[in-house]
This record gives sequence, structure tokens and C-alpha cells, in this order.
Amino acid sequence: MTTLIFMRQSKLFGKTIREAPKDEQSRNAQLLMRGGFVDKTMAGVYTYLPLGLRVLRKIENIIREEVDAIGGQEILMPALQNKKDWQATKRWEIEVMMKIKTSYDKEYGLGWTHEEVVTPLAKRHIKSYKDFPFYLYQIQTKFRNEPRAKSGLLRGREFLMKDLYSFHTDEEDLNRYYEIVKNAYFKIFDRIKIKNKTYLTYASGGDFSKYSHEFQTITPAGEDTIYICEKCGVAVNEEIVKNNQPECPECQNKKLKKEKAIEAGNIFKLKDRFSQPFGFKYLNQSGQEQPVMMGCYGLGPSRLLGTVAEIFNDENGIIWPESIAPFQIHLIKIGDSEEVNKQTEEIYQSCLNKNLEVLFDDRNESAGVKFKDADLIGIPLRMVVSEKTLSKNCVEVKKRKSGEVEMVEADKIGDYLLTN
Amino acid sequence: MTTLIFMRQSKLFGKTIREAPKDEQSRNAQLLMRGGFVDKTMAGVYTYLPLGLRVLRKIENIIREEVDAIGGQEILMPALQNKKDWQATKRWEIEVMMKIKTSYDKEYGLGWTHEEVVTPLAKRHIKSYKDFPFYLYQIQTKFRNEPRAKSGLLRGREFLMKDLYSFHTDEEDLNRYYEIVKNAYFKIFDRIKIKNKTYLTYASGGDFSKYSHEFQTITPAGEDTIYICEKCGVAVNEEIVKNNQPECPECQNKKLKKEKAIEAGNIFKLKDRFSQPFGFKYLNQSGQEQPVMMGCYGLGPSRLLGTVAEIFNDENGIIWPESIAPFQIHLIKIGDSEEVNKQTEEIYQSCLNKNLEVLFDDRNESAGVKFKDADLIGIPLRMVVSEKTLSKNCVEVKKRKSGEVEMVEADKIGDYLLTN
Repeated sequence: MTTLIFMRQSKLFGKTIREAPKDEQSRNAQLLMRGGFVDKTMAGVYTYLPLGLRVLRKIENIIREEVDAIGGQEILMPALQNKKDWQATKRWEIEVMMKIKTSYDKEYGLGWTHEEVVTPLAKRHIKSYKDFPFYLYQIQTKFRNEPRAKSGLLRGREFLMKDLYSFHTDEEDLNRYYEIVKNAYFKIFDRIKIKNKTYLTYASGGDFSKYSHEFQTITPAGEDTIYICEKCGVAVNEEIVKNNQPECPECQNKKLKKEKAIEAGNIFKLKDRFSQPFGFKYLNQSGQEQPVMMGCYGLGPSRLLGTVAEIFNDENGIIWPESIAPFQIHLIKIGDSEEVNKQTEEIYQSCLNKNLEVLFDDRNESAGVKFKDADLIGIPLRMVVSEKTLSKNCVEVKKRKSGEVEMVEADKIGDYLLTN
Repeated sequence: MTTLIFMRQSKLFGKTIREAPKDEQSRNAQLLMRGGFVDKTMAGVYTYLPLGLRVLRKIENIIREEVDAIGGQEILMPALQNKKDWQATKRWEIEVMMKIKTSYDKEYGLGWTHEEVVTPLAKRHIKSYKDFPFYLYQIQTKFRNEPRAKSGLLRGREFLMKDLYSFHTDEEDLNRYYEIVKNAYFKIFDRIKIKNKTYLTYASGGDFSKYSHEFQTITPAGEDTIYICEKCGVAVNEEIVKNNQPECPECQNKKLKKEKAIEAGNIFKLKDRFSQPFGFKYLNQSGQEQPVMMGCYGLGPSRLLGTVAEIFNDENGIIWPESIAPFQIHLIKIGDSEEVNKQTEEIYQSCLNKNLEVLFDDRNESAGVKFKDADLIGIPLRMVVSEKTLSKNCVEVKKRKSGEVEMVEADKIGDYLLTN
């Protein structure tokens, strides 16, 4: 992340847009484009502008902290994928992969997941049961051959993923860690304030498990449909319901609530689906070869950014949760008198001395323009300094979320900010 | 970067390798693979393992700090490139670009540079002379159709780049900023300790300038040849020499010293080469349209990682400069007695309390294996705790670079580390 905790808005690259952009259908991308967080390069492909990158990096760091806390080791695998490894798992022909044929006649895929890289990698480094379990993850750019890309940041052709892979000597240990990751995911959702809308959702386990699990976040813009058991606080996805009557897999309750949702993340017990084709085995205590058990756990920082924008907004713009807001404080100077300029600069400096993150609207724009921009950008605390507030020896503080306004004595603003 | 400043080596993913890997010719990749920093996925494509990613992120952060300090605003542009924008600049057919044809019949390129993204982006957001100058950069993954990829991290098919683009109202302002970037680059080289081997090198300016500039770092493994003027401390590259006798462009000295070198970075006055095809103009104070002037400035974090490994090593492994070492301290426990275990754990904890970065070799391996691994990994300070050192109430501290060994009293080790 940028090393800076402050920014003068007169210098900030990325303008707010008053009208919803015409070439964008999704609400999350419209809000993010209007606030100057992202720029649309083409369908399903976005540039993160300075404000958007700040939010994205905060989401990444929350994920990193929680995955580090459950023993994840961060690595960085390549996007370019080796054809022969995808042929080994019989996934080279899956349509989702973008493919490249080079001038020197080599074919590569572009990774949309990394089992075909991480499994041979782990095999090259691990031999003995003593090295298990271990957990590798990365936060890295993925690509998808996506014919339809109309959901903004929720489903891109290029997007960021945190993908975690776990390696175990037996299924019991895989099951143990799988529960640990579930908890870590809910901690992440809690920190970005979407936990109360996010359901552990039973999905098809494919060939090797009865169920896998998705984390589905309720919102009208969701591409998925889930069926919630309000008793157990879990859900099932449409794919499972298709073949059966909706039924809670935990309590068999048949009265489930249908909702639109976004898949925020997913976790999967791979068992030996990938270790087997790559011949990744380990030597147990008796020196015998045993198959390695694997799990994989995905979570998309860019998709979470879109999800938060989709959920936390009003008619005036985005309302960022504090934990991932681009800045904590939006300091706004109204007017251009010597006293206003001097006081605002002093408050700006005192915020910086306290290590508070401040976007300082030092532009020569009207109060109306500045307030509209502040709402679009959605920083939690708006702090206005004007002739009027200074005549009362005060600063006006407004909370973006509640709309609550307070007048705070100018020389107590530092203490106010540290406690709010 | 990972949120952790410590690591137990028994848990660390990525084993050291005693013998140079047979499928790797380049010295930098051999050293990095042997130390467990990178894993080779295929020719020109590497995975960064936990130790390597730590070094890479430190290099990135040094670059970030110095580019932020000269007003750079960090953004993140996509790898997927729009064909029509590359056709607009007549660069779609350049062979270096990897290309994708999707199932929905769209063609993309993969970015090896980003003028074709950043120029239309800036045009969408900037209208008036008041918004100039501004400076946008990213640290992002690039791809190159590279028939020959034999130089390890120095020339990959997939690699990281810091690319900075500057935008100006006139050439004079471009020239001003160009000099500022030159200085910032030398600050970066200074912080990663390659400044005294790195020369500002005159290169061809193409169609629009007499010269552009490269930053060439001397090493026998370099793919480039440069001619150094020892009087002026600058160099010219081979391309310029080809058509003329070698001559210093600053003092016309003809006695130049020929050296092999790695291109660590380059800077280029683009002028209106890209603003022109995209029709990116601004309104001046009189309301007249004027062409935008641009500069671009490249620096590769992964290539710098390879360069540092190539330069700082001995027959036993890498010798990291402190500023980018994966950890500051390599704490090594020899033996397994209660006293040794207890004391080492105490020292480990006391380092963590002081916020020092520690790799703790807590494995049950012989002293010989541990010392060999420590040399391969190349952390600046090695700290050994054994029965022998404890009998003197001491810890043995060895500097990787000088080989200098000191016995430090166990209860003063914290103070020693803070001052060394």
C-alpha cells in the first residue's frame, strides 16, 4: 500500500462523476466509478485509482492478517500456466481458461485457480510426514474467459484472489483445518462488516465430498440464489435445491427463505483430487508412501470491494465501513479567508501528527460541490472548517453513516478524533 | 507483505538445496533457488516462496516510498490490454506482446508496458491545465513473449514492474521532472546497495529525443555491454556505440571502459508520442487546446531482486543488504538441552518484543547443516545459542558479510541488536 496516510484532494487523481456512467450496468461499479475509486478499461476489466487501491489494499491486509493467524504462509505464484500440468489433471480444456500461443510456439494458460501450480511446487519441497500440515496462500491476479461480464467488480475477466491451499497427511486433519478456515472467513467478514449478511452455504461437493461450502452475502444484485434456514443460520445453494426439495442440511427444516446473494468465498475439500495426478505422496513414520490430502479456500478482495460498495450506500454514494475506508477523515475547507486557511492547515497537520488518515479537500470549489463529493466518496467522518464554524470556535463533524452532526471545539478536535 | 516479523524455520515452506539446480543456468536464479527464495515453475517463470516474497516486498516498498516522495500516486492497471488502443499507437503487432483469443471471439494483449492504458485513462479524468503536472504509477505484473529466457530473474516471461508515467503541460516541465526521477532512482539504488555499481547510461532516444537513459548495473552476468566514462561517472550503451566511436556524451572523452551490465531501470521522454494518437489535449489558460507531454519511468522489483542476488554472494550463498534481507536476524539453536531450549526461546521472544525480524532455526538438525543453510539464506546477523556459548553466558553473533564473530553476553543481546 502507498506509504502515505494523507492526501490533498486538489492533487488527487480520479474525479467524482455526478451521473451514473452509461456504459456500466452494475450498481457496485457505478458507485465506485462515480466516487473516483475505479475506472473502467473495458467490460469486466477495471483500473484501481488511488482511492480504490487504498480500499483494496486494506481488504487484502485484513485477509492477510487472518490467514497468517491460522498459519498461512504467503507465496506468489505465476499467472502463466504450464499446459502439461493442466493436461495431467484433465482441466486444460475447461473453457474458463484464457490461452496464449507464443511466437516460439509454446502454449500457456492464464491461471483462474492454482492447484496445478501449487501441487507440483509442494511436491518438489516436501517429502516427510514431519513437514505436514502446511498452508500456502497468495493474493494474486486471476483471469477468466467470461463471456458475460456485467456485474462490475463482482465478476471480472481479471480480478484479485486470495487462494489458500492446505496439505495434510490424512482426512481427519483436513477436516480439522477446514473448520479453522471457516472461522477465519467469518472473522474477515466481520471486520469488513458483511458478516450479518453472509451465510455458510452448502454447495455440491462434486465427485469427492457430499458438500463443499460457499460463503454467500445477501444483496438484491446477487447472481446466485440461496435458501436460508433461519433456525440454523446456514443456507443451501440453487444447484443443490435443483435436484431436491429445499431442505436445511443441518436440521431438515423445509421452510427456507429464498434470497439473491453474491458468492463472497468458497472452501473445498480436494482430498487427493490433485495430489493423485501429480503423484504427490509422503513417507509416513513406517516409511510407507501415503497420498497427500488437500483443501482449497478462495476469497476475492476485488469481489469483496464490489460487495461492500453494493451493500453500503445510499442515494448519495458509498458509506465505507471504517476498517476499509480509503481515509478515516475527510477534512473540508469552505471559503478562502486567511483564518479559514490557517485553521484548516493546522487541523490537517495535527491529524497527521496523530497518524490519522486524512483526505484534505483544499480545492477552490463551492460548499455544495464539496459536500456532494464527500458523500460520493463516503469517508466515515466529514470535518468542515468555515467562517461560520470558526465564529463559534468550532469544527463541524458529520458521520457519513448516521448523518449525525456535532460541533466540536477546534482545539479539542484531536482528542475527539482519537476517541471516535 | 505478510503481517509477521518472525518465523520458525521448522515450519518455513521452501527447502534449501545443496547443489546448484541442473535445469537452471543463471547464477541469480541458482542462488535464489538454493536458498529457498524462489521455485522455478518453467523457463522464465518463477514462484516466490515465503523468504523470496519478503525480499521482493521490501524492494517494492523502498520503490514505493521514493516514488511517493516525488508525488507519484499509486494505481493498479489491468494486465489485459484492449486491442484497439494498441492499434491506435501502431504497437499491436510488436512481437513482445502475448496475445489471447477468447471463446467469445475477443482478442486481448497482455501488458508489457502501460502507455496504451494510462493515456486514455488520464484523458478521461483530466481536462484543464490546473490539473497538471501529475504522476501515476503502479507495481504490477508484466508479460513478455520472450523466446530466450535464460537469465533467471533478470529476464522473465512474467515479472513485476514499477511503471511511472508523468503528464505535463510543456516540455520544460517534463525535463524538470525527468531530473527528479533520476535522483529518486539513485536513492532507490543506494538503499538496496547497488548505487556504486549503477551508471546512468545514455541510450537511443528513438524518434523523438536525442537520448533516453538507462540505469545499468555492472555484473559479469549482464546481458548488456556499456562503455563507462570514469571522469563523468556516466556510460553509453552498445546501441549508441554501434554507429559511432565510443565517446562520453558529457565530456567527449574517448577512453571508455567496457563492462557487462544489467539494465536495472530506464526513463524516457515520450513527449506527445502517446497523447497524440489518443487525442489527449488540455485547455490552457486562454482556453486553447494544447498537446500533453509525457514521460515514462520503469524499474523492475523482480529484476532488482535478481540483480542483488547476482552481485552480493560468495561461494556459500547470498549476502543480503540489511535493507532488503528477508529477516534481520537468524537465530540458531544448537543442541536440545533444557537450558539451550529455554534460553533460545527467551532470546526469540525478546527479539519479537523489540520488533526485530527473526528467523528462528528451531529444527533438529546438526550444527553443520544449520550453518550451511544460514550461509545459503544470507541473513545479515547469525546468532548461535549452544551449550558452549551458554557456558560462557554468551551468544555467538556472526556477521554474514564480514564473517566477523563476537561473543555477546546473553542478557545484553537485545541492546546489542538494537545498536548493530
